Amino acid sequence: MDFGLPFASYLQEYRYKYLALFHALRAAILEGTIPHGAKLPSTREMSNLYQLSRGSVNQVYDMLLAEGYVTAAVGSGTYVTYELQETQAADAEIPLEIELSTWGRRAAQGRALPREHWPEPMKQPFISLEMGRMVSEAFPTDTWNHVLYQEIRQFESVRGDVESPDTLGHGPLREAIALHLRRMRGIQADPKQVVICNGSMQAIALLAQLLIDPGDAVIVENPGYMGMKRAIEAAGGRVTPNAVDEHGILVQDWEEKLVFVTPSRQFPTGAVLSLERRQQLLAWASRRNGVIIEDDYDSEIRYGGRPIEPLKSLDLEGRVVYVGTFSKTMYPGLRIGYAVLPTCLVEPMRRAKEIYEPSPISMMEQRALAAFIQNGHYERHLRRMRRVYSRKYAFFYRMMQEHVGHLFNVLPCDAGMHVYASWRGTADDYAAFRSAAAAHGVGWTDGGRYIYLPDTPIAACFGFAHLHEEELLQGILRMKTAWEDRHTYLRSRAMKN
Amino acid sequence: MDFGLPFASYLQEYRYKYLALFHALRAAILEGTIPHGAKLPSTREMSNLYQLSRGSVNQVYDMLLAEGYVTAAVGSGTYVTYELQETQAADAEIPLEIELSTWGRRAAQGRALPREHWPEPMKQPFISLEMGRMVSEAFPTDTWNHVLYQEIRQFESVRGDVESPDTLGHGPLREAIALHLRRMRGIQADPKQVVICNGSMQAIALLAQLLIDPGDAVIVENPGYMGMKRAIEAAGGRVTPNAVDEHGILVQDWEEKLVFVTPSRQFPTGAVLSLERRQQLLAWASRRNGVIIEDDYDSEIRYGGRPIEPLKSLDLEGRVVYVGTFSKTMYPGLRIGYAVLPTCLVEPMRRAKEIYEPSPISMMEQRALAAFIQNGHYERHLRRMRRVYSRKYAFFYRMMQEHVGHLFNVLPCDAGMHVYASWRGTADDYAAFRSAAAAHGVGWTDGGRYIYLPDTPIAACFGFAHLHEEELLQGILRMKTAWEDRHTYLRSRAMKN
Repeated sequence: MDFGLPFASYLQEYRYKYLALFHALRAAILEGTIPHGAKLPSTREMSNLYQLSRGSVNQVYDMLLAEGYVTAAVGSGTYVTYELQETQAADAEIPLEIELSTWGRRAAQGRALPREHWPEPMKQPFISLEMGRMVSEAFPTDTWNHVLYQEIRQFESVRGDVESPDTLGHGPLREAIALHLRRMRGIQADPKQVVICNGSMQAIALLAQLLIDPGDAVIVENPGYMGMKRAIEAAGGRVTPNAVDEHGILVQDWEEKLVFVTPSRQFPTGAVLSLERRQQLLAWASRRNGVIIEDDYDSEIRYGGRPIEPLKSLDLEGRVVYVGTFSKTMYPGLRIGYAVLPTCLVEPMRRAKEIYEPSPISMMEQRALAAFIQNGHYERHLRRMRRVYSRKYAFFYRMMQEHVGHLFNVLPCDAGMHVYASWRGTADDYAAFRSAAAAHGVGWTDGGRYIYLPDTPIAACFGFAHLHEEELLQGILRMKTAWEDRHTYLRSRAMKN
Repeated sequence: MDFGLPFASYLQEYRYKYLALFHALRAAILEGTIPHGAKLPSTREMSNLYQLSRGSVNQVYDMLLAEGYVTAAVGSGTYVTYELQETQAADAEIPLEIELSTWGRRAAQGRALPREHWPEPMKQPFISLEMGRMVSEAFPTDTWNHVLYQEIRQFESVRGDVESPDTLGHGPLREAIALHLRRMRGIQADPKQVVICNGSMQAIALLAQLLIDPGDAVIVENPGYMGMKRAIEAAGGRVTPNAVDEHGILVQDWEEKLVFVTPSRQFPTGAVLSLERRQQLLAWASRRNGVIIEDDYDSEIRYGGRPIEPLKSLDLEGRVVYVGTFSKTMYPGLRIGYAVLPTCLVEPMRRAKEIYEPSPISMMEQRALAAFIQNGHYERHLRRMRRVYSRKYAFFYRMMQEHVGHLFNVLPCDAGMHVYASWRGTADDYAAFRSAAAAHGVGWTDGGRYIYLPDTPIAACFGFAHLHEEELLQGILRMKTAWEDRHTYLRSRAMKN
């Protein structure tokens, strides 16, 4: 009897002959090649056929027996008992559509903004002034690695730890953050109110789920951070975009109950919410029984002299949820964010987080980060970053004004890792210029990505923190050349006509 | 003019005098101690009052000015412009109730099972035979740390990486898992179908959100894993518990569309779903257009000879979602789980995960784990674990039968890190015995935690993997003594009456 088992190919896949035989036989039974009722060769025959010991063949038959594929009767042999079901006769997985829930359909509709794909530029390498990139030169890699190594060594002894850590995060890290916020940001946070999250988006998404019912409208800034839109819409809410000017969001007497804002440094314009508007915002929340989610994504990297206090530091009623992150100040791969919650939201957040993660994630990094902050490394790093980025910002701002100031109105700012620049020309001009610039080897983040309302001015976002001065200048000069080339071309065409 | 500023206390809090002064002044303005319209002392006066340079005082005034707390008129002085709002006059944060969404209320109702609190035992130390603990002796700490160190060193160069990694997880880890599943578990998974999650619960919770609409009923096993209940109920679904016997779940022609099962090793009974029932289950799914979520939480740690193939390996229609985890085989602090998704759920899962984590979490551990698997360390570790746990299991099972076999019917098993034992007596007996045993210094996980249906037999779950043989024996002997003491006492009481 020859089964035509593809034994050789299974041999390549499995380390042991008996496993290869087991899988080959099992597959043949499952596929119906060896049908229901067929008698398998005796162990002696099999042993000769595939050059295995009889013991090994016995083991294989026992495995098939234990899983119910075959049956064995003493003195009579081994028979296939597995019956191929009609529905299983299909050759391969049928492309199936599984029906999604309402939430699933909402989630599937949302789509993270795709990375831009630049054309092959004339000049290499392409200079990307996109946002969200980070320079590694400013990061104290050696110190951080040292702290990590230490935590790994110590972690060894706690790896089999019997106590489950708190879902809300590593206790010492929550304490270190509370102290940092108190010292540096004027927020009187109790460590109990601090929840560690996997980046700030987890905090925002869970808050959206905790606070938004399907159909609820939520105030967001225009232009604004689209991650908030996704979180709101996944929870079934609708966004009500509200205009922003150079003093931040224009506060109104909204009927909505929830507002998402970026007061310390409006995203993406960089505007700082004025004190007057802060007070209006808090007064609105108090009057309307509203809740404010404050996303403070990068204002810790400030190089202007004055500290910009978070809105939370003025919040006496506990209506502000403060969301922060270390992914911007440390490095993007460290997905550690946090929220400072009003007392009444601490337990609901714990229960919400438990559904996804009964135990906290990235404990090693959480432990290392706690030590990094406690030892003063984080503050020193922030100071160094501020110096480095301050210089870069000043250089970039000056060069932009000098070389492309006729194209962009660059908004001055004193914090963060990108600048916002409104376009002085028409929409058509901007689109043509962006293409020309890309062909010349320079690109940036289009401000159009963050726009809800159609009459929002055209703008560009330039991330400058990840490049050296010569690269920044090079990028700006390429923009200038791209514009001039285009300009020359247009003039020559106008003369021909 | 004396403000009575608590300057000294601010000095203790802030490193620099000017920051202490800024915060002291700002707090006084916010609290109304320095009211609207009040004139601040001149910089000279301030400088004398608090022993700062005039330059520093100037800086403080500039900071207050920049944030809009004061106004300055040349030659006239600095005046407080901040007006205390009525609602801000409250002394402290008012205990506020923020209204939760429907989801939030559901989430807040659920509660993770609390850890047991044992009474102070007579015998020290307390021997805990609870589940979910892990022995560190079986873990190759040095090898793992070495791999981690290597990843940290290499990570350095990619820390400022411009490419955002895939939300679904580190590519090489997804590949390593697909290969491992193919080789070891008979699952033909494409790496594209593998999603890395923060432990298996994240996968389960997101799947529940993707597939369950409010009001939907979902089949679960009784007894069964309560994490599934929480995920189902948070999504608005209802659980329909279905009985389990020694061959796993009793398959019926359910009208429900979704089933959560643990076929390789039923949780908590340890029963292996028979092939017949596997085929019934798949046939049900095919007939009813149903979806099966298979949670394979610890069957990789098997010490019986035969490999227990996951249900997924029989799934030709793509109706089974396979969920696995490394938290049990590696160490609990490593929160890395995964799911093998039917093709049609890959994109919905990506979008769902993006809402919470646009970038994947624990990249360092993901990279290290990929290397650990690729280098064969993981398979070697599994083999070693199996040997270690196999011995422990055999010892524990034998000792249980020998010493407390009259109390418990211990179900034999050939995988995992706990055994399930049904109680031979009455409910009252069990409760009294459990208390007596705790007083004698031994405790275990009550099987009652996993029960939905009232007529489920009384049972206990004994985790044995984290203890040495002498500790296991000690625990069993304490149980025996606890029972005998109680028995003697009962007999003596009966004789007295």
